[in-house]
Amino acid sequence: MAKIPTKHGRFLEEFRPGEVYRHKRGKTITEGLFAVFTDFVFTTNPLAKNRRYARAYGFRDLVAPPGLVMNVVFSQSVEDVSENGRANLEYIDMRFGAPVCVGDTIEAESLVLGVKASSRERDRGVVHVQTTGWNQDGDVVLTYQRKVQVWKGDLDAPVAEGEVGPRDVPVALSLPAYEPSRGYRELAHLTSDDTYCENFHAGDVFEHYRGRVVTTDHIMLTGMLDNTSQVHCNQWMIDQEPERFLGGRLVVYGGIPFYLCLGLSSPDVADNALADVRYGTGRHTAPIFAGDTVFASTEIRAVRDLPGRPDLGVLDTVLRGHKFAKKGEQVERIEIFYLEREIAVKRRSHYA
Amino acid sequence: MAKIPTKHGRFLEEFRPGEVYRHKRGKTITEGLFAVFTDFVFTTNPLAKNRRYARAYGFRDLVAPPGLVMNVVFSQSVEDVSENGRANLEYIDMRFGAPVCVGDTIEAESLVLGVKASSRERDRGVVHVQTTGWNQDGDVVLTYQRKVQVWKGDLDAPVAEGEVGPRDVPVALSLPAYEPSRGYRELAHLTSDDTYCENFHAGDVFEHYRGRVVTTDHIMLTGMLDNTSQVHCNQWMIDQEPERFLGGRLVVYGGIPFYLCLGLSSPDVADNALADVRYGTGRHTAPIFAGDTVFASTEIRAVRDLPGRPDLGVLDTVLRGHKFAKKGEQVERIEIFYLEREIAVKRRSHYA
Amino acid sequence: MAKIPTKHGRFLEEFRPGEVYRHKRGKTITEGLFAVFTDFVFTTNPLAKNRRYARAYGFRDLVAPPGLVMNVVFSQSVEDVSENGRANLEYIDMRFGAPVCVGDTIEAESLVLGVKASSRERDRGVVHVQTTGWNQDGDVVLTYQRKVQVWKGDLDAPVAEGEVGPRDVPVALSLPAYEPSRGYRELAHLTSDDTYCENFHAGDVFEHYRGRVVTTDHIMLTGMLDNTSQVHCNQWMIDQEPERFLGGRLVVYGGIPFYLCLGLSSPDVADNALADVRYGTGRHTAPIFAGDTVFASTEIRAVRDLPGRPDLGVLDTVLRGHKFAKKGEQVERIEIFYLEREIAVKRRSHYA
Repeated sequence: MAKIPTKHGRFLEEFRPGEVYRHKRGKTITEGLFAVFTDFVFTTNPLAKNRRYARAYGFRDLVAPPGLVMNVVFSQSVEDVSENGRANLEYIDMRFGAPVCVGDTIEAESLVLGVKASSRERDRGVVHVQTTGWNQDGDVVLTYQRKVQVWKGDLDAPVAEGEVGPRDVPVALSLPAYEPSRGYRELAHLTSDDTYCENFHAGDVFEHYRGRVVTTDHIMLTGMLDNTSQVHCNQWMIDQEPERFLGGRLVVYGGIPFYLCLGLSSPDVADNALADVRYGTGRHTAPIFAGDTVFASTEIRAVRDLPGRPDLGVLDTVLRGHKFAKKGEQVERIEIFYLEREIAVKRRSHYA
Repeated sequence: MAKIPTKHGRFLEEFRPGEVYRHKRGKTITEGLFAVFTDFVFTTNPLAKNRRYARAYGFRDLVAPPGLVMNVVFSQSVEDVSENGRANLEYIDMRFGAPVCVGDTIEAESLVLGVKASSRERDRGVVHVQTTGWNQDGDVVLTYQRKVQVWKGDLDAPVAEGEVGPRDVPVALSLPAYEPSRGYRELAHLTSDDTYCENFHAGDVFEHYRGRVVTTDHIMLTGMLDNTSQVHCNQWMIDQEPERFLGGRLVVYGGIPFYLCLGLSSPDVADNALADVRYGTGRHTAPIFAGDTVFASTEIRAVRDLPGRPDLGVLDTVLRGHKFAKKGEQVERIEIFYLEREIAVKRRSHYA
Repeated sequence: MAKIPTKHGRFLEEFRPGEVYRHKRGKTITEGLFAVFTDFVFTTNPLAKNRRYARAYGFRDLVAPPGLVMNVVFSQSVEDVSENGRANLEYIDMRFGAPVCVGDTIEAESLVLGVKASSRERDRGVVHVQTTGWNQDGDVVLTYQRKVQVWKGDLDAPVAEGEVGPRDVPVALSLPAYEPSRGYRELAHLTSDDTYCENFHAGDVFEHYRGRVVTTDHIMLTGMLDNTSQVHCNQWMIDQEPERFLGGRLVVYGGIPFYLCLGLSSPDVADNALADVRYGTGRHTAPIFAGDTVFASTEIRAVRDLPGRPDLGVLDTVLRGHKFAKKGEQVERIEIFYLEREIAVKRRSHYA
């Protein structure tokens, strides 16, 4: 009888700069995934809520919020890239392309841009990848780089250190054209009236009003994405060596606070957005656990034109997430997430 | 840098009798929302379970149970009416119109009927609204009044007390016609055989057999409705001032026990219902928290004809919800919900 | 006023050998049920994930994994057969027929094959049924026998002991034909390359790598199936007489570890499966509670041809589920599930 040890996910020594991983499975965004994984974040933009509104704007159907697109593409890369990851370090140059609607099927691949062993700790290192996702028509919906800290499987194995340059992925935000005949104004009451491009100014800071506790439902949510990383769902593994794992508990998958911060910001800065354009850089600055309540704030850094689209402007923002903790009598605000975010927002002059 | 405090939801002093709020967003009832938010309540009526049955009866698709219709319309009014509410006091004259099927998009608005400051406590008062929801074809699906206790934002602000009369909302229960050619009898085994109109008599009291514990999944469920009221999901807020909040814990959104009581009663009194017609009055008589097991009972007050529909009768009922608590060695039955409910039920003579 | 005690589910003395129960309701597999109840088990097979892949293989739409088919059929039988069950003893000769796709409506019935009172304990006995489910076109999707231990309602009531033979249910695995023109090879990167029929050998044992904790979301999941058995959701009932119930806690419905074990095995033995063919026998060997982490292993007993399908082979396997518990310093591996499972797997020669 042959005992076959099964294992999924690469360790540091298995990555090779320049290699491409065509990720397995792919993922159809059913109405089930869409509803569960959109609504829990309190997104308010009716493109993701109201089919009548989404179609009137020229989209095929309900539009997946950027956080859902990011999560569906990202999760497909987990088995190949980060199932044996220790921590996600950075998102870089995340750019959105074709809108994703409910019913679309997303597939993805990753190119290894860099591999580097840690100089201080011999059990880990950093992998740098470029991940791209596309829909059933072959249109790119998202491309980004990320850096992730990955465990070594065999401490003595050599690491194929090196770097290659990123590919030039043709990604272009492709939104339905502006057509005055669509009757946008009759739909204007479905969004807030103080979130048009004209409402924002560099320097504005929004402390988003709502918070949302993360419960153990994070395990189900993460599973719904086919994100199989064991640190989010394998309680027994954590309990055997709690000191090895962040906080000694099941850590919430980063895509959840990422998306939750986007959602909490939605009523204040993205209720009249047509899309997120690009995230320059992003990182998780502290972990989240079941029981934590997540809050967010947005800083407007610039308001600018979107070439070719006089009906839209772009907000350059920083989205920050935070939670609170008590230290004796003191309340400490702990930043958990940082994202440089560009949002394409409707101009009141054209829509309201 | 301008710090912009964001806030959602009106305080008592911001309501004006006679004002109309066209609620934002709207909500498409995807198969995701439908499945998650229908099945957890143990509804047994196959109109909401079995597409073959629903279509054979002449409905376009799976039919949303009345509790789902109520929750989708109600939740759209939360931001405008009760995000800063302390307690929901009463539902009045809730009437159902066009059937709602999976895939429908529901939008809603509310008219302020009355505003009244509390005579005893200067930090709160009562707002009385009439809320109406309709589908993508403009057909009214639900209209009702409710009274809600709302916090003041500024204790010193004047309150615009006053009353206006309700609008006459044209709402009519519109069910597919009875057509013997549909072959109802071949489907009769899909429902219980002791829940036809002929089975009920004034004075009957049904203690519904099943109970269902509410877990922290109430937070997810409430989020799926876009109900953003913070008392259901902001754990940190509660923990800072527990004495200010009911029970000092996250309180379960009332729409959940409302719907759960309807569901628990379904096998005994609504398995052969085609619709709920009207709720004369309803109220939550005690709060529910995660960990509580909800039970229900139904009292039949009258059985009467439905004009124009000899195939149907109407049950005038009282639906009550309860939970149990231990007081020392004693078990206390605590009523949590009261609803005067009229149900349109098939006659055995026509269907079985 | 007539108090009507309502009760659902038969007790031992109410079963009659040879009786057929046409189960109520039926169940449409919406995209909501499909997504929630498929993804939580970590199934990796893209037939259930990727519409493009499923259609390219000739299926109408996303294909329900065998564990979803089993759960949907099984749950329909709960009210009639096992709502008053104490323990599910055995699954026997479970055979799959027509593939089930998202959107299908499944109905079911059960024939009572045997009734037997316990010789040792007068409050219970064993019921043996044959349950069959079919789709909206009348094609059988699943048929199986099971034995379940059921409580008596009235200790003094006579039990109609007896046996009848099973019916010959025409069930045939009906898979889309193999057509080289479908371009299978262009899709081969969507599945793992080491799970084709040629990769398996009698005697291989796979310890599946991943584990997944079961949280209180089991209550929601079970409700989504219309499985109303009270031991899974009625916390108050359990708390009143904990000694009467397994473990004194809400026990997780067996269909959840059943399906979870199938899912955990998926990347290693079923990623290139087109269907499960038959489960010879299966049983739950220990209960599962919220907080337990479930693991699984698969033993390959034989690899054989599938008559008429040279593109496929059949793996005869044993799927076992387990959890761990600490006994002092010792870690104990507790088997929770045993299933003799036949899987139809693609041959590399034809697909890769």
